[in-house]
Amino acid sequence: MLRKQIGGSGQQRAGLRRVNQGPARRRLAPCRVAAPVQTSSSVATFNGFVDYIHGLQKNILSTAEDLENGERKFVVDRWERDASNPNAGYGITCVLEDGKVLEKAAANISVVRGTLSAQRAVAMSSRGRSSIDPKGGQPYAAAAMSLVFHSAHPLIPTLRADVRLFQVGDEAWYGGGCDLTPNYLDVEDSQSFHRYWKDVCGKYKPGLYTELKEWCDRYFYIPARKEHRGIGGLFFDDMATAEAGCDVEAFVREVGDGILPCWLPIVARHRGQPFTEQQRQWQLLRRGRYIEFNLLYDRGIKFGLDGGRIESIMVSAPPLIAWKYNVVPQPGSPEEEMLKVLQQPREWA
Amino acid sequence: MLRKQIGGSGQQRAGLRRVNQGPARRRLAPCRVAAPVQTSSSVATFNGFVDYIHGLQKNILSTAEDLENGERKFVVDRWERDASNPNAGYGITCVLEDGKVLEKAAANISVVRGTLSAQRAVAMSSRGRSSIDPKGGQPYAAAAMSLVFHSAHPLIPTLRADVRLFQVGDEAWYGGGCDLTPNYLDVEDSQSFHRYWKDVCGKYKPGLYTELKEWCDRYFYIPARKEHRGIGGLFFDDMATAEAGCDVEAFVREVGDGILPCWLPIVARHRGQPFTEQQRQWQLLRRGRYIEFNLLYDRGIKFGLDGGRIESIMVSAPPLIAWKYNVVPQPGSPEEEMLKVLQQPREWA
Repeated sequence: MLRKQIGGSGQQRAGLRRVNQGPARRRLAPCRVAAPVQTSSSVATFNGFVDYIHGLQKNILSTAEDLENGERKFVVDRWERDASNPNAGYGITCVLEDGKVLEKAAANISVVRGTLSAQRAVAMSSRGRSSIDPKGGQPYAAAAMSLVFHSAHPLIPTLRADVRLFQVGDEAWYGGGCDLTPNYLDVEDSQSFHRYWKDVCGKYKPGLYTELKEWCDRYFYIPARKEHRGIGGLFFDDMATAEAGCDVEAFVREVGDGILPCWLPIVARHRGQPFTEQQRQWQLLRRGRYIEFNLLYDRGIKFGLDGGRIESIMVSAPPLIAWKYNVVPQPGSPEEEMLKVLQQPREWA
Repeated sequence: MLRKQIGGSGQQRAGLRRVNQGPARRRLAPCRVAAPVQTSSSVATFNGFVDYIHGLQKNILSTAEDLENGERKFVVDRWERDASNPNAGYGITCVLEDGKVLEKAAANISVVRGTLSAQRAVAMSSRGRSSIDPKGGQPYAAAAMSLVFHSAHPLIPTLRADVRLFQVGDEAWYGGGCDLTPNYLDVEDSQSFHRYWKDVCGKYKPGLYTELKEWCDRYFYIPARKEHRGIGGLFFDDMATAEAGCDVEAFVREVGDGILPCWLPIVARHRGQPFTEQQRQWQLLRRGRYIEFNLLYDRGIKFGLDGGRIESIMVSAPPLIAWKYNVVPQPGSPEEEMLKVLQQPREWA
């Protein structure tokens, strides 16, 4: 009845096992050679992006394992979208659990191909995509790398990020973002995070940071709570170079490349600090809001659950969550200070 | 910064407080005198049902506190739907937390009045409610008692139940149900629970138990998991006496009266049994499914979040939840035995 656990968590889970565990340290295959960047064909763009996210995922796993001093490793789970159709796509879900810094970290790739449904085609053509037939039926391809890092330390914020490409015919649109969900407000963290992204955006287009910061604040919002989920960052959908007036592919790669650099200085600042049981309890309660947003409102999760691989979608769930009835922070407490920012986003950069 | 906690949990939560706590043992006002049962007017029906659920809630609180040997008490929170409109309705949310048997127990009343939106009116008239104007605008009244008991002991199932009345003009429809979500399969528990409800249904109409048991299995289903949430029980919407061919009001009251009697023998059987850390971990993981259903699929919660009081809706969330990546029970383990029943509901009575 007992099976050895990968990276045994110290908690007994006899009788339970993970599937597809493989050896304790299973590495991704080496990054494929990138397609020449000078080609303008959409196939080359797509393949080039797929190569990029493979390399990005590999770098993220390596950096994250370094945070754990090599004592915790990612489980690497490759899955096929449809075993009977080798062209339907695949995913690589990578999860590290029970780390000293990373209570749960996931960095996932998915690369899928299919045929546009009429419902999605109508939605896209209504957004001005002239190459989309609103009747549907066109082939599409989509590739994404998405990441959630749930920190063990209550003073280290949760990090969420993604970069993605959607392509139909010769049209390609990028999406992505990177945002921070702290449990306690730290002005220095907030400023350094937002300044990082303001600097990245500043290289591409005036006003881009302001636009994507506001988009992020709008998107990660829980109407029933009248709270934003975190202190935001960047968020964008449907960006194409022709309309954006800047090199969106280069921008999106820079977003991907910045995911850990924007966050690691915050980790370094807090990981040695002591924390209290009260702070840990507040962290567990705040994670309740995180999953409320994911399950009630997140479009990506709703889309993914409609035929996606459930474990690769729910891997974004926090590892441990608490709900208490009607917890309201004391006036003037650090918990209340955090809530005020969630109720009314600030400018940080 | 510190405030005393109601029924202090043993975990420090300095800096956090609950609002509307009141004294440690705040009791509901005595049950109002019931309207004469022989009147057939719909107003009397509605008021009579409101009286009934007040008394039901009072009895449930008292019985539940007995389970805790009086060492934990419910916090009783009365709220107004709209402070500026005394006719809009109210709720009484009652929560007991951190008990030895009841890790989190909630028994809530809500009594609300309003004007039918066109959207709801169309949905209702399409279900054959001839008194509903599909353009909306008619006044309605709704009353409900809903309950969730999350057990501390992994061998004591989660209990969920509700009884409700919706009324427009002279038409009134009842809804309700009672279902069980165990972490481990116990055949004796499953049989005793379902036999209880089969006996209740048997007094009213042939085939009623089968119909409502199947309805329950259909409703508490997580498509993305291909799992039912628990072992079911009864579930029904929109039942009116004229169509049902039995006394629905009497039946619904018997459902309400049976909520704790169907479950207490199961508690008595297990509360003295030891359990392992492995069983506790499995319980926390199964609670993940519980909240997935609530937030992704439950119509009542989605309806409630659209303008309802968020804390009275989210009070149904389990007190502590875990998500691990891709946990699959060992073949032949008790965890796998439970999953098999969730994947394929059985007949128990």
